[in-house]
Amino acid sequence: MEAELKGLLSDLQSLKDSLPDPSHQISVGKIQARLEHLKLGNAQRSKIKDMSAEVVDSNPYSRLMALQRMGIVDNYERIREFSVAIVGIGGVGSVAAEMLTRCGIGRLLLYDYDKVELANMNRLFFRPEQVGMTKTDAAVQTLSDINPDVVLESYTLNITTVQGFEIFMSSLKNKSFRPDKEGTGVDLVLSCVDNYEARMVVNQGCNELNQTWMESGVSENAVSGHIQLLVPGETACFACAPPLVVASGVDERTLKREGVCAASLPTTMGVVAGLLVQNTLKYLLKFGNVTPYLGYNALKDYFPTMEMKPNPQCSNAACLERQKEYILAKPARDAAARAKMEAEAFVEPECLHADNEWNISVVDDSDVQDSSASSGALPEGLVHELPSADEFQKPPASAETTATPIDDLEDLRKQLEALNAA
Amino acid sequence: MEAELKGLLSDLQSLKDSLPDPSHQISVGKIQARLEHLKLGNAQRSKIKDMSAEVVDSNPYSRLMALQRMGIVDNYERIREFSVAIVGIGGVGSVAAEMLTRCGIGRLLLYDYDKVELANMNRLFFRPEQVGMTKTDAAVQTLSDINPDVVLESYTLNITTVQGFEIFMSSLKNKSFRPDKEGTGVDLVLSCVDNYEARMVVNQGCNELNQTWMESGVSENAVSGHIQLLVPGETACFACAPPLVVASGVDERTLKREGVCAASLPTTMGVVAGLLVQNTLKYLLKFGNVTPYLGYNALKDYFPTMEMKPNPQCSNAACLERQKEYILAKPARDAAARAKMEAEAFVEPECLHADNEWNISVVDDSDVQDSSASSGALPEGLVHELPSADEFQKPPASAETTATPIDDLEDLRKQLEALNAA
Repeated sequence: MEAELKGLLSDLQSLKDSLPDPSHQISVGKIQARLEHLKLGNAQRSKIKDMSAEVVDSNPYSRLMALQRMGIVDNYERIREFSVAIVGIGGVGSVAAEMLTRCGIGRLLLYDYDKVELANMNRLFFRPEQVGMTKTDAAVQTLSDINPDVVLESYTLNITTVQGFEIFMSSLKNKSFRPDKEGTGVDLVLSCVDNYEARMVVNQGCNELNQTWMESGVSENAVSGHIQLLVPGETACFACAPPLVVASGVDERTLKREGVCAASLPTTMGVVAGLLVQNTLKYLLKFGNVTPYLGYNALKDYFPTMEMKPNPQCSNAACLERQKEYILAKPARDAAARAKMEAEAFVEPECLHADNEWNISVVDDSDVQDSSASSGALPEGLVHELPSADEFQKPPASAETTATPIDDLEDLRKQLEALNAA
Repeated sequence: MEAELKGLLSDLQSLKDSLPDPSHQISVGKIQARLEHLKLGNAQRSKIKDMSAEVVDSNPYSRLMALQRMGIVDNYERIREFSVAIVGIGGVGSVAAEMLTRCGIGRLLLYDYDKVELANMNRLFFRPEQVGMTKTDAAVQTLSDINPDVVLESYTLNITTVQGFEIFMSSLKNKSFRPDKEGTGVDLVLSCVDNYEARMVVNQGCNELNQTWMESGVSENAVSGHIQLLVPGETACFACAPPLVVASGVDERTLKREGVCAASLPTTMGVVAGLLVQNTLKYLLKFGNVTPYLGYNALKDYFPTMEMKPNPQCSNAACLERQKEYILAKPARDAAARAKMEAEAFVEPECLHADNEWNISVVDDSDVQDSSASSGALPEGLVHELPSADEFQKPPASAETTATPIDDLEDLRKQLEALNAA
């Protein structure tokens, strides 16, 4: 749009220059001015170098930086360092991309091969005027308008083709955005696809690259969905406990019938995208607990959770490799955890007030009956609506929290043997 | 935008008509054609008379009508009969409005007095180019582009002022959209405001009008939220168990500090809006269970639910009136429920096959051991990810399901006395 308006304006200028009659030139000038106004009306905001916490109406980041003052996040601005890849820019992926863009994520990599259709209009994000555009182009158009600070990379390709998969893998490995980063060039991959074949491909790629990713999905009847965290070697991969249709080797495309489509709702997809990006933020910015698996049953407002261990008989060779590495690294992990715990235990408490002219002394806790119950008490008849935020200020979820504890060397040996036998 | 482009086009035509040189006329003609193309690019889709279930890319309702084929909703197209009022078009209200618009709701009434700012860009919906517009105008612009079938009414006013409240009430009472509708002119009011004063005003209005509404909210630290169903007389109203700041009579505006703002996240607000509109759809289209109260704790992915009975000592006089009516109507409700149950019990089972040439007879259930367990069984090692949708195909939540059962006349008498004493 902007480019077209620019082109029109320069053509109007050429026209004006070529007109002999000054009154005609004035007419063209007026039209130019109004077009210029139209262009300005659609102008993007300029880029912002540093995120500011200043509370003014013109600061798009004030409500996000407030997360620091509220004690939720230690350093919100770190979000600019992170790269997130989103595979599938449909009902869930497009909303996830918009949320991350509005949060000021550093870089987004978008993968889709599909085009926008009117039939997509029952979900959020795409607009009727974008019908016919590729989803990646339409997404870049909308997202760059919303937040020009985000680096957007779009890949209009099908990752399940040989060539598509190669480009997918090399784009994940590219570290030009943050050359010092360990591992791949992205911090997280979000799978927002609508079929098992594509999920298995994301799973394959992430297992090969040892790349943590999150999976999401919505049921065909539109009233349930889920998100899942997958850490290669540590949690079950998508092939460890495959869905029946994958395990049975049936081509899922043969299950689709002419003239029949899946139902979808903007509500379910919006909730799943929200839960997915919320867990993405918790994972990247290290606050709260990242949920290993979270289901959403819309008919009952029921949200089941669970954890899944890797399968030592997994059919995916790269998964078995990652499992071996994870087990072999256990002694080192344990030693590091022990060292950290000991270091924390021996920290000398800081002396706040060296002098004590009022002779204030601390009362022994054991003397105070029920102090914990009374300190947080509310006036009679009032109750806390939700558990207070303080109750959840636990240390950020680390790799260890979702791991299965391995109790002794014998266990460890057995697990390795099982993997080697597979 | 469209009107401006039209104006420009007609001015270009006048200019062309006044130019003596044909080559200049051709230049202007080319510019006209490109402007025309720009205008078409922004053109809305035309209105659609009937919702079709046809599976074609050009049908914006195919994925919604599929809810019928999937057995989730009996009659999706009924959504066109409903009117929903949304008070507060901010981070939750705007997304709720977009979801309902994409679902093809009949009519939306939007209330807000605020303007769009860059500081709102960390939540979904509004775009930077809309900065400076009223939120109602910006919302109408976006929503009418997305779905021209929805009737949009916008009210740029503050419902907490005397005049604003009067317009609010008369707009809810206006039945011109569906003159035959019982009660008010709207089916549901969604409160998406960010302060207690406005919530108390919505509560007052809905109690006076005996209008069912849903309340929503997000915490100042952006990591928790809730939705709540309020049926006057039947469930607790907002004044039945008021928040501490309301009960204590403190003016909440005095609690706000200069240079300090609440945190907000597009994720939390998107999830709350999604849960709110999902429950709105369940309430209007009678599927699943409408949850009386649902909390969302983002740090833990914890979703508490509860039910709240009305308070016979509620400070709101209109609430006490509705409570009295609800208790007095109990015998009639009971009789109706009994009659319905009896009618269903005595339905003669339809005879599917009068002839029985193969002498097929039904095996007595008691002879079949564990038939229920085996019929839904999966191959060994596989489990259902979520409870199947069939397990939730219960009759739609009616007014009775969330009501407190009153066991005898003595109880009823006591409750009425308590209300009269208040």
